[in-house]
Amino acid sequence: MLPTRRNSFNSIIYFCTMTEKRTELQDLGEFGLIRHLTDSISLQNPTSKVGIGDDAAVLDFDAEDEVLVSTDMLVEGVHFDLTYAPLKHLGYKAVVVNLSDIYAMGGVASQITVSIAVSNRFSTEALEELYVGMRLACERYQVDLVGGDTTSSTSGLIISITAIGTVAKGQRVLRSGAKEKDLLVVTGDLGSAYMGLQLLEREKQVFQGAPGAQPNLEGYDYQLERQLKPEARKDIIDMFNELGLQPTSMIDVSDGLASELIHLGEASGLGVQLYEDKLPIDPSTFDMAREFNLDPSVCALSGGEDYELLFTISQSDYDKIKASPHFSVIGYMTETKGAYYLIDKQEKVHEITAQGWDAFLEKRKEDIDPDKQPASE
Amino acid sequence: MLPTRRNSFNSIIYFCTMTEKRTELQDLGEFGLIRHLTDSISLQNPTSKVGIGDDAAVLDFDAEDEVLVSTDMLVEGVHFDLTYAPLKHLGYKAVVVNLSDIYAMGGVASQITVSIAVSNRFSTEALEELYVGMRLACERYQVDLVGGDTTSSTSGLIISITAIGTVAKGQRVLRSGAKEKDLLVVTGDLGSAYMGLQLLEREKQVFQGAPGAQPNLEGYDYQLERQLKPEARKDIIDMFNELGLQPTSMIDVSDGLASELIHLGEASGLGVQLYEDKLPIDPSTFDMAREFNLDPSVCALSGGEDYELLFTISQSDYDKIKASPHFSVIGYMTETKGAYYLIDKQEKVHEITAQGWDAFLEKRKEDIDPDKQPASE
Repeated sequence: MLPTRRNSFNSIIYFCTMTEKRTELQDLGEFGLIRHLTDSISLQNPTSKVGIGDDAAVLDFDAEDEVLVSTDMLVEGVHFDLTYAPLKHLGYKAVVVNLSDIYAMGGVASQITVSIAVSNRFSTEALEELYVGMRLACERYQVDLVGGDTTSSTSGLIISITAIGTVAKGQRVLRSGAKEKDLLVVTGDLGSAYMGLQLLEREKQVFQGAPGAQPNLEGYDYQLERQLKPEARKDIIDMFNELGLQPTSMIDVSDGLASELIHLGEASGLGVQLYEDKLPIDPSTFDMAREFNLDPSVCALSGGEDYELLFTISQSDYDKIKASPHFSVIGYMTETKGAYYLIDKQEKVHEITAQGWDAFLEKRKEDIDPDKQPASE
Repeated sequence: MLPTRRNSFNSIIYFCTMTEKRTELQDLGEFGLIRHLTDSISLQNPTSKVGIGDDAAVLDFDAEDEVLVSTDMLVEGVHFDLTYAPLKHLGYKAVVVNLSDIYAMGGVASQITVSIAVSNRFSTEALEELYVGMRLACERYQVDLVGGDTTSSTSGLIISITAIGTVAKGQRVLRSGAKEKDLLVVTGDLGSAYMGLQLLEREKQVFQGAPGAQPNLEGYDYQLERQLKPEARKDIIDMFNELGLQPTSMIDVSDGLASELIHLGEASGLGVQLYEDKLPIDPSTFDMAREFNLDPSVCALSGGEDYELLFTISQSDYDKIKASPHFSVIGYMTETKGAYYLIDKQEKVHEITAQGWDAFLEKRKEDIDPDKQPASE
């Protein structure tokens, strides 16, 4: 059985909504805008000593911890499409995808900094929405927004977030620690965020063909939430602690399972054997993929943006995870570096290639065309 | 006498140079590009445990230190103009301006992360130039590049840098610590970077009027270097330690002296009395401002991008700095919050307003028109 991770935003989606009031960004000026967007922020985390308002944030960490730092940049028109991504959701997602990198090290996130560049197409109210979403994510994950920069851009919206966290010394999990015969495990389910994107892209086409048409999004709540408001698996890090489980290697699934397992294999100098019938796919995502004439396994392998954790454990730790619905053992690590194989449901062997999303390739949907399977030997 | 801080790039400036070879960004792909740009980077700082190549960097700080984090975003067409800013210089400057924020807390920078978004107008060779400049700054300031993100943009180049550093507990210098009657001190000299920008803008106009025309930049080396390849005042932090001097408040001069001293006054709940005849202006910058029909004092007050340190000290500490050519006492803190006054050379009193650069105001040159002095009561 797959775990359910339903989210809790009130309204999942609205197309092209506009707030009624519009205050121009220049009315507040740069300093006024930063102050306006961040003045209600208070520091919750004991490691946050000084937040926004000085030249740098001041943090004070325990001597037993190592500090983790990760950074990501999201660009309008490349990583998100404001036609269907509400700014509140976008803010939430932008924070979550960064925190996910901290959890992928076995750590806990404690602070973020947020820089945004924004064109005058955006109003102050639009940025407020973005910050509402970011603050929601900060509250949910107990992270403080301690710094940032707000500037103008010549086109569109760019969000750059740096996440900071800690991990107890000796407990960090790198990509490079996997050992031969270690089990390959993934959390949650895969491919749903990608199907959410397919749906939004389809309805956008309809909307562009007939402006005013209402999108038909009913019945796909789970996939839309996975795409528009993903969650990061902080809960899994807590579980590891409870289970006394130390993964040997770990990565988060942002670009797609195929791409991530190759990263683990490369970093650890090993190969991977993966079983198609073990891929965790939510039944509704499976059905939806079929309806869209897509191969559900290809969506799970290459879809990306699941923000699940992919990790390896020693076989002797199998008992610790076998009863949990949160974990799926999908394969194991093999001796031969660079040999990444998928065993399909007919027990045929296919070579896996990285079909994960590449920021410099313009087409993404085509990459995952069912007629062009990544698993082709 | 003003200290000289001449820089050492071999060629200061070249207009619209193009590298001969051109490798398209998509030829390497996202992961290949990051690897290509960062593969020669090795970690020098003992606090850097894991750098680029995992989900997050791993850092290990001393228990006696607090951690400082600062972030800045630079946008093409807003913060820099590639018509005259060579990419190598731009990379160097982008790092330096971030480090400057760490020094402004009384700390020492140890790591940076760099995210860039770049359109396909740029070649791989162009990005290599940018990274050469960033690496030069890292070497010069003994900072490790430990993480980042590289992605495509729909237009232009955006650079987001997060700087991380440390300060011994009890030694951080906030903006808010100034006391009444504290002396207001600035390092180095002011206004030169702004004059460098004026020159570059003038020659750009000439160039655009007559493509192929060679820019006339001779005799302005200092101003060009201050604009195109500024340095951050790490040396001053070292001096504070040697002198046993603990400033009561501090900020770096990025947006302009007027703007920064108002920040110190606001944060500390005090006023400022400033003396025009104490403003440190390099003689060549003074002459150049006159030649450009600008008021040298206005350039020093409002020009910005000097990356000097502005700080306050207790009067009892005056003896520690009085003999040094690096420091100019330019005024003192007064009791009345919000009262910022300039005493001009004729001993007339003017109110100071923040004329520092505002990212959301389009015009910048006009702000500093000699006919429209910021000091007008």
